[in-house]
Amino acid sequence: MIYLDHAAATPLSPKAKQAMEPYWSEQFFNPSSPYLPAVAVREAYESAKNTIARAIGGKGVDLTITSGATESIALAFAAIESVEPAHILVSAVEHPAVFANAAKFGSAETIKADRTGRIILDDLAAKITPKTRLVSVCLASSELGTIQPISEVANLIKLERRRRLSLGDKTPIWLHSDASQGFGLMDIKVARLGVDLLTLNSAKVYGPKGVGALWAGHSVRLRPLIVGGGQEMGIRSGTENIPGVIGFAKAIEESSKHIHSERKRLQALRDLLRSQLSQNPSIQFLGNPKTTLANFLPITIPGLDAERIIFKLEQQSVYASAGAACSASKGVKSRALEAIGLSDAEIAGSLRFSLGKLSDTNNTKEAARIILEVIASEQERQSA
Amino acid sequence: MIYLDHAAATPLSPKAKQAMEPYWSEQFFNPSSPYLPAVAVREAYESAKNTIARAIGGKGVDLTITSGATESIALAFAAIESVEPAHILVSAVEHPAVFANAAKFGSAETIKADRTGRIILDDLAAKITPKTRLVSVCLASSELGTIQPISEVANLIKLERRRRLSLGDKTPIWLHSDASQGFGLMDIKVARLGVDLLTLNSAKVYGPKGVGALWAGHSVRLRPLIVGGGQEMGIRSGTENIPGVIGFAKAIEESSKHIHSERKRLQALRDLLRSQLSQNPSIQFLGNPKTTLANFLPITIPGLDAERIIFKLEQQSVYASAGAACSASKGVKSRALEAIGLSDAEIAGSLRFSLGKLSDTNNTKEAARIILEVIASEQERQSA
Repeated sequence: MIYLDHAAATPLSPKAKQAMEPYWSEQFFNPSSPYLPAVAVREAYESAKNTIARAIGGKGVDLTITSGATESIALAFAAIESVEPAHILVSAVEHPAVFANAAKFGSAETIKADRTGRIILDDLAAKITPKTRLVSVCLASSELGTIQPISEVANLIKLERRRRLSLGDKTPIWLHSDASQGFGLMDIKVARLGVDLLTLNSAKVYGPKGVGALWAGHSVRLRPLIVGGGQEMGIRSGTENIPGVIGFAKAIEESSKHIHSERKRLQALRDLLRSQLSQNPSIQFLGNPKTTLANFLPITIPGLDAERIIFKLEQQSVYASAGAACSASKGVKSRALEAIGLSDAEIAGSLRFSLGKLSDTNNTKEAARIILEVIASEQERQSA
Repeated sequence: MIYLDHAAATPLSPKAKQAMEPYWSEQFFNPSSPYLPAVAVREAYESAKNTIARAIGGKGVDLTITSGATESIALAFAAIESVEPAHILVSAVEHPAVFANAAKFGSAETIKADRTGRIILDDLAAKITPKTRLVSVCLASSELGTIQPISEVANLIKLERRRRLSLGDKTPIWLHSDASQGFGLMDIKVARLGVDLLTLNSAKVYGPKGVGALWAGHSVRLRPLIVGGGQEMGIRSGTENIPGVIGFAKAIEESSKHIHSERKRLQALRDLLRSQLSQNPSIQFLGNPKTTLANFLPITIPGLDAERIIFKLEQQSVYASAGAACSASKGVKSRALEAIGLSDAEIAGSLRFSLGKLSDTNNTKEAARIILEVIASEQERQSA
């Protein structure tokens, strides 16, 4: 198997798996129970939250654990629930969960992105209104890997905040960023980014599935989506997923430790794949060559059918995606790829390769060989 | 360790753990991805959902997987979201999550329960109004283990439904039941119970934490709380927690297999504990002797402080709870125990023993000896 879809799912890290081990059948207690072994579980849980928060330069108390990135995004958007639909700005290259929650919790407008998938700051600046409550821009696009200028977005929001302050207008405006892609590969610090809300995803950083988190700065008052026993300081009720959070913490601790060397390694592999694939001049590289995640290589071969290519790659045990996995299985055209101005033929021929822990020089070279072969045979078939 | 708190948390079953094993680092794929190994994961997931549903006589397509019982309850209540606050009836002995969601999604009224914790059907019948949209009665109380007359509740609701039908009134009325306690120990069939919505919890049936489900009959149209990629037929978005659901299915499959023998075994152990404890005439047994879960033994020693007893039991490695674990750590007086008419002294002196897989004759006898000893020493201290 050559796995080129790390952006869709990652295998659980062996160390994370090991860290979870004692919490299944031994330290299985309900952290709300009063006796000592349960209190020890509670402490392990809080300590794991601190570990996750530290990875983004934050504190555990500012972190709400959720069942994944989607719930984290929903919780971020729920904070702005107001009587009249709130004005929300979301980038054109967001994950479907951001679009869906923006539509649910407010009246959403889209921030344009250029052909590389990078948002156009002037467009954002022009679209911020006195009523804008939330701006949501991902750290990096899940389809293109393009890293967004979050600090610059934060600066624009600060300007608007100051303007409102000078007028005595107390309407808050917050910046949310979905860091599902990029977390574990980029050096993220919430203060430096200037975000108010940050979504994290365990399943993309070699942690277990079914766990995510929302970091919220002190200016934000979250409103619970799920009420009940009052866990997570009343923001997210339900008995805590102890093994899940312990595993998430271990996975991100490990990623953080090797973040620089792993980024370098993946970048070299990605560049290798890119240079191999450029042997076929029909292959166009998408995304932004300057600001891109180290492990992403989005391409398109206009005129070919990406689904057929994926199928033929699969027959040789090479696994890749057409666009984000979440919408891929539903056969809908990628909203993000359309928004950056790709033609229908370019969208239909687009593939996303994403490298990761399972990648090495040998299987990357082998992947390149198979991909070139499959594309060539598809081109032949087309011209036949 | 003698664990007498199976109602608060259960250790993961070894077979469930084993079933989850391949899905961590090998079959880790995103079930929405297009290639075959991901499709196989999707199939394993759907098959696990069918297994869970079969345990309640239902079908996988009618099951929405959630992150636990609390989210399942929230999803059930979200179905009745309406313009004006909907009239909701909840039993007096519900879990805090039911009270919290009833308050969030409607205008809630409480169905009285008798001193044994069993709801009073006449009170329910009197409180159903033409505007009642949802009735929520747990399968068994989490503090007392008292089994509720769900089929009789369903009959009352059917009468009201017929009345509405005869008037051409299309306002729906649904019955929700939180089966967190009882599932895995009682033979549950949704059709026989007559429920429209049923909440299941993996963590209470020796499955992994962080997983639950909501079964919904065809008369109910669920509304998503968490929107995004459209998983769970659009009702609950977010990448599926594959290992969690596989583990949940295996755990409940195993429980279902041994349900009759395990119920008998636990009942015998519970009766043993009860008969041993009745040596001390100050100990009063709570709950309903006729309709009770096989593994529950709620008691009270009016005048003693349950928290002190728990602490002294803990010193001898016997772990038990005062009321439901979810509220126990917050030092709030149990709403359910108050509702059934216990005095303050009875509430302050109340303990819940809940047996399970970790219980056997030896450790139950030993537990009885230690409990009697601790209570006697506390009584001496009181009278000194």
